[in-house]
Amino acid sequence: MSAACIGSMVSVPGHWHPLDGGITAPAGFLASGLTAGLKPSGKPDLCLLLAPEGATCAGSFTTNRVRAACVDLCAERLAATGGRARAVLTNSGQANACTGERGLIDSLRATAALADRLGLPEEQLLICSTGVIGVPIPMQPLLAAMQPLVAGLSPEGGAAAAAAILTTDLVDKQIALEADLGGRVVRIGGMAKGSGMIHPAMATLLAYLSCDAGVPAPVWQAMVQRAVERSFNAITVDGDTSTNDSFLAFAAGEPLAQEHHAALEAGLTAVAQHLARAVARDGEGATCLIEVRVAGTADDQAARRIARTVCGSSLVKTAIHGRDPNWGRIVAAAGRAGVEFDPQAVALWLGEHQLMAEGQPLGFDRPAASTYMRSRATGAYLRDDTIEIRLRVGEGAGSGTAWGCDLSDQYVRINADYTT
Amino acid sequence: MSAACIGSMVSVPGHWHPLDGGITAPAGFLASGLTAGLKPSGKPDLCLLLAPEGATCAGSFTTNRVRAACVDLCAERLAATGGRARAVLTNSGQANACTGERGLIDSLRATAALADRLGLPEEQLLICSTGVIGVPIPMQPLLAAMQPLVAGLSPEGGAAAAAAILTTDLVDKQIALEADLGGRVVRIGGMAKGSGMIHPAMATLLAYLSCDAGVPAPVWQAMVQRAVERSFNAITVDGDTSTNDSFLAFAAGEPLAQEHHAALEAGLTAVAQHLARAVARDGEGATCLIEVRVAGTADDQAARRIARTVCGSSLVKTAIHGRDPNWGRIVAAAGRAGVEFDPQAVALWLGEHQLMAEGQPLGFDRPAASTYMRSRATGAYLRDDTIEIRLRVGEGAGSGTAWGCDLSDQYVRINADYTT
Repeated sequence: MSAACIGSMVSVPGHWHPLDGGITAPAGFLASGLTAGLKPSGKPDLCLLLAPEGATCAGSFTTNRVRAACVDLCAERLAATGGRARAVLTNSGQANACTGERGLIDSLRATAALADRLGLPEEQLLICSTGVIGVPIPMQPLLAAMQPLVAGLSPEGGAAAAAAILTTDLVDKQIALEADLGGRVVRIGGMAKGSGMIHPAMATLLAYLSCDAGVPAPVWQAMVQRAVERSFNAITVDGDTSTNDSFLAFAAGEPLAQEHHAALEAGLTAVAQHLARAVARDGEGATCLIEVRVAGTADDQAARRIARTVCGSSLVKTAIHGRDPNWGRIVAAAGRAGVEFDPQAVALWLGEHQLMAEGQPLGFDRPAASTYMRSRATGAYLRDDTIEIRLRVGEGAGSGTAWGCDLSDQYVRINADYTT
Repeated sequence: MSAACIGSMVSVPGHWHPLDGGITAPAGFLASGLTAGLKPSGKPDLCLLLAPEGATCAGSFTTNRVRAACVDLCAERLAATGGRARAVLTNSGQANACTGERGLIDSLRATAALADRLGLPEEQLLICSTGVIGVPIPMQPLLAAMQPLVAGLSPEGGAAAAAAILTTDLVDKQIALEADLGGRVVRIGGMAKGSGMIHPAMATLLAYLSCDAGVPAPVWQAMVQRAVERSFNAITVDGDTSTNDSFLAFAAGEPLAQEHHAALEAGLTAVAQHLARAVARDGEGATCLIEVRVAGTADDQAARRIARTVCGSSLVKTAIHGRDPNWGRIVAAAGRAGVEFDPQAVALWLGEHQLMAEGQPLGFDRPAASTYMRSRATGAYLRDDTIEIRLRVGEGAGSGTAWGCDLSDQYVRINADYTT
């Protein structure tokens, strides 16, 4: 994806502008990706990301009670080292979840082999797995690929890395942003994967972020957590939270002056939102991206909760698939979000068309609203693939946004015909 | 539906056996149903249920913040009279939700007209509405039909009443049970409607129950609430909680000796479960009923929560539609239910086929499991339409059951092509 194309779809905050290079755009980050033979399809399936010395890593993981051994390992190592991680290995094809004791043993073997090759302590190495649940990783081909994987590490490796983490995704998800912060050039890069089982309770299936500015570990962790709330935790494809959701964000480089932290967080949030939207847009069977913006709640959290409930409603998703301006389903979904509001205060817009005011339907131009919806369809990452729903539920200062996609018969076919 | 057919699908507790007659099977209950002309289709659309003098009514309503005026009216009148309701009018075709002040005015006009005809105080009359959201009730035909509706009240009116409350339902939902409790014959009848927007947070779209034994109001209310938790609040079709969900349960007759209350509650629960399962079975586009039984949690509530989360998972629902024994999706859904359990303790059965033990997949007979699933399909209310999933998550004493249905491309087509 070119930088120009990124610019057309992400709302880039002040200071920042898009550039090419993805996860390896920031100075000092190396990556590689190759086909180790883990996937029957023969597509790339092994990825390595190496951060510069002194990197700080903030991780955010699935809240599913059933989580993969690799997720446990990442969380433990980040806690034990205070975020001193240097590299993350990712295998795609097997999720290594529900594989019993063997799951942890295989994760440990993989990072031990990587430690040997890189000459780094095991505790600073992480591993993420994605693919079929209940199937162990074929360790022979994985271990055999470790040498070429490390040999292939390169500052131009972002695209190969982004390709090697995909499973049912139709497109890769990458971005890089650059800013001049007080005379110093700072870059943030990111990549993600995910298409089904998307309703992150911490982060989307797998997402990675790199930044070439140094930030103290606790500050970085807090920034990342806030960005996750406004990005990965605000999307839903099918309401199913995965066993492997992980987001790993690395910061490494000369310390950034504190006065620029807010600008850095704005860039970090934009990168996370770009990746999260890209995952929702690539939802299984989706024909459009849905953006729900809610305002007028007591706080931002309540607004995001309503927005995500609307995004996740099967009835809203099917209505949008049929390009039907069915305001009743939108307001009914908002009502069950568990947030207090006055139904008589609700106003609703679909694009520029106002459908409701003061809790009642307006006599809107139905054909025009349908035409607006039909004009929005997924294609080549255009801004015009997004159907916008705006909901005002009161006079409070809270606001929030969530992203999702429509529910198509194609989604059902993909998931009904999929053989375990 | 014949009594024999009911017997084949409901687990009838001790003392009780099924009989014909539905909501009017219990002594003293009268009902009628007719076509008032509210629906464009010309199908029956107006229903009246009259309980005997001295009846106690327990109500359970949607928790959606956006709820219809008729729901507010029912809740207020039951609270004001301490459950002294005598009759409930139901119109199908228009939900009378999101209709502003007019919604309440129309509900009041309808019950005032009914009060005149029946010679009863308005406060003892209830009204339920179901159908399209945002559209007011055509009051002229409704008021014109009041005279024939009251004139048609009959102890054989159960079937006509059950037909007049339907909207997108493919079949009506009725049941009646009878028991000899200490030498006295007690009957419980019920009817319900509902097919889409089904994920009750209090009760399903509309359900009614009659009983010809007297029970003190607070005792009856508590019994009904417990039954709702184990029936309507344990089903899901599409995760969307309606604006109009209401369950009204009337008890009227000679007081029942307290020693028989437990037996009465068992019958009440069986009737409510039958109606709830019938709604799930008739879910939009469904080809089978899904029953998820969970055991081994700390308490029953936790087990029901896991069961309902599995039932509501789009990935589980599509896998079952494809008759795919995809245990990974089942256990992943269980893990995100918000209930603590040890993933290493999980055991899973599909019908008689055990798929998992101690948190890991077993080498089960996949073709046999698929054959079991394919043998289960909706048809003429047979017991064999039910795909059973049993999940054990630990050694706790808690257990619970939930019901749902599969997610088909037909569901998407029904809801994408539906024009508001």
